[in-house]
Amino acid sequence: MYQSFVPTLRTLMGPGPSDVNPRILTAMARPTIGHLDPEFIRMMDEIKGMLQYAFQTKNELTLPVSAPGSAGMETCFVNLMEPGDKVIVCQNGVFGGRMSENVRRLGGEAVIVEQTWGRAIDPEQLEAALRQHPDAKIVAFVHAETSTGVQSDAQTLCALAKAHDCLSIVDCVTSLGGTEVALDAWGADAAYSGTQKCLSCAPGLSPISLSQRAVETIKSRKTPVSSWFLDLNLVMGYWGEGQTRSYHHTAPVNALYGLHEALVVLHEEGLASSWSRHARNHNALKAGLEAMGLTFVVPEAERLPQLNLVSVPEGVDEASVRKQLLQQYNLEIGAGLGSLAGRVWRIGLMGFASNPKNVLFCVNALEAVLSQYNAPIHRGVATGAVQAAYKA
Amino acid sequence: MYQSFVPTLRTLMGPGPSDVNPRILTAMARPTIGHLDPEFIRMMDEIKGMLQYAFQTKNELTLPVSAPGSAGMETCFVNLMEPGDKVIVCQNGVFGGRMSENVRRLGGEAVIVEQTWGRAIDPEQLEAALRQHPDAKIVAFVHAETSTGVQSDAQTLCALAKAHDCLSIVDCVTSLGGTEVALDAWGADAAYSGTQKCLSCAPGLSPISLSQRAVETIKSRKTPVSSWFLDLNLVMGYWGEGQTRSYHHTAPVNALYGLHEALVVLHEEGLASSWSRHARNHNALKAGLEAMGLTFVVPEAERLPQLNLVSVPEGVDEASVRKQLLQQYNLEIGAGLGSLAGRVWRIGLMGFASNPKNVLFCVNALEAVLSQYNAPIHRGVATGAVQAAYKA
Repeated sequence: MYQSFVPTLRTLMGPGPSDVNPRILTAMARPTIGHLDPEFIRMMDEIKGMLQYAFQTKNELTLPVSAPGSAGMETCFVNLMEPGDKVIVCQNGVFGGRMSENVRRLGGEAVIVEQTWGRAIDPEQLEAALRQHPDAKIVAFVHAETSTGVQSDAQTLCALAKAHDCLSIVDCVTSLGGTEVALDAWGADAAYSGTQKCLSCAPGLSPISLSQRAVETIKSRKTPVSSWFLDLNLVMGYWGEGQTRSYHHTAPVNALYGLHEALVVLHEEGLASSWSRHARNHNALKAGLEAMGLTFVVPEAERLPQLNLVSVPEGVDEASVRKQLLQQYNLEIGAGLGSLAGRVWRIGLMGFASNPKNVLFCVNALEAVLSQYNAPIHRGVATGAVQAAYKA
Repeated sequence: MYQSFVPTLRTLMGPGPSDVNPRILTAMARPTIGHLDPEFIRMMDEIKGMLQYAFQTKNELTLPVSAPGSAGMETCFVNLMEPGDKVIVCQNGVFGGRMSENVRRLGGEAVIVEQTWGRAIDPEQLEAALRQHPDAKIVAFVHAETSTGVQSDAQTLCALAKAHDCLSIVDCVTSLGGTEVALDAWGADAAYSGTQKCLSCAPGLSPISLSQRAVETIKSRKTPVSSWFLDLNLVMGYWGEGQTRSYHHTAPVNALYGLHEALVVLHEEGLASSWSRHARNHNALKAGLEAMGLTFVVPEAERLPQLNLVSVPEGVDEASVRKQLLQQYNLEIGAGLGSLAGRVWRIGLMGFASNPKNVLFCVNALEAVLSQYNAPIHRGVATGAVQAAYKA
């Protein structure tokens, strides 16, 4: 026999999903209404307005795709690309790799600007690639690499794309709400994000935003968009203006209640306050971990405050530590991916999870678990360091 | 300023979403855990087992796609089709039309077996098309047309496909849980459904199931699947066996809590009991509406008990009736689509919404609103007819 599933209460400090604000959980449980109900249409308009605020854009085409971040990525590529197009993909982690995978599957040519995992994209390398490939149509890069905790300089990369007459596609999955995203100031043409990172919402939706230049590119396509579900020509009819929305697909009503509430929470706090809260908690976590003797992988200037890549000390079994944190403390932190697997932890401080309670809890739970190993860990000093960082 | 969104409590008796069981709403609000958490993996296994029960199949590849029914449809086509493939699409409503749209966008050739909207697919017409197109690879049809409330004979249509060495793709969006779906007995190769119909769950996920023959077709593809997000070769790695699932995308954790609970509810009631409940409430609704003088569009033998296509009487403003039902009674019923727009209502009795309270409420609210028009409506007899039908 099957029984209702009641999950153990965890603290989510991995690469996402992160802790969901109870206000958002409650919102998702509100009674479902129809996806063509006038009340629902009004809520959609508010979501659009609040997403424009979060992305800092006036882009009309700003909406949540009804599927997780990977589908948001695919929405950008499948709409802006046509078979044969050349796309320059900056790749410094897993998600850049997924971008090139998208390009190839859609019949395009991916030119890779390769960067060491754990480092920001080098604008000079991008510029060299743009010079070498004057026929490139799109530049794609990840603003905040979830696999490494690195932030690249979106403003500079978007400007380079524009200077070489390319559209830009920017992955903002882990940055939106946590560090500054400013699509209009950057001149970005397409951006996508996820709900389960710094928006503190459950996973399942992917906010996207496309510039007028991107919309014109889509409208003047020579071939149809291969995906019916992700074709923005059709989705626009549902998320457009007025009460005469045409039915496209059945919107994930309750998930959208959650996103609406998450955006209300972000709007109440204010973008700048949210960014500085993320920075403050990151500094405290860093102080605690460094006092223990742990080290960060990413150079300080390129670090994401919401996702901390920490080296596993010699002699410590990486997976066993995560397992013990989960079993003994109900604390989830993330493993490394790809070439970093087994060598690093990824500690998230995203959205609602970015708070002093989580910082102190994580630092001390990690100290307790690491103390079993014969590793050079300084004990009993982390809490003081965290406290000092908050006072500074 | 933006405020939390608190929807008006509606009764959802349209084509879906239908009323969501409060048990399921509550489940969706449980605290989020990670998509790689061992507890979550166990829950995924239970969802798979319960979906196999609901679809009546032993298919290993049975899982919920992380997006609405339209994405489930696209998953079947994008994985089973390759450019140049010929697909016979039986078309007797909106969703058959969407299937051909999928085929064309993916570079295939769609051969249409056209049927009048409101009638079941004619097996003889399919057979003729199969004879005329011996090079066809796939037969696709809608088991339960949400746009018309018609059920086609899936067993016969799947058998014809198999006899002509074609794979079959079956749309079970509106049938799953409401009328019999029996993939193994039918010999169906691919089926997809939605969560917001007879499973009484919030919209947003699409359960799919593929036969071993379908899996072999996918594994022996000559071209890559154009969609990274929907590529079942990759999704299988996440929904496969054991605890070593590879990360594909971030699963919509809370939506899956809801689906899990919906399937527990279905399993507790039992498939046969659920089908007979849907039939019983349909009979009562029919008795009430016919006593009032309203007529059904679909021939009796082809009707779906969970979705009732009712003719709008002469002299009645279709849209105004729906608007009044929504504003005065918080009752949502559906409009007609395509060639049926303005001429019919679609009244759903799906899943949790299929109950005597809703039947009596709908019949009487409709009577009250229709009484304003100069239409031949018999008043004061519907309740008695409903009561008599339940006693029969």
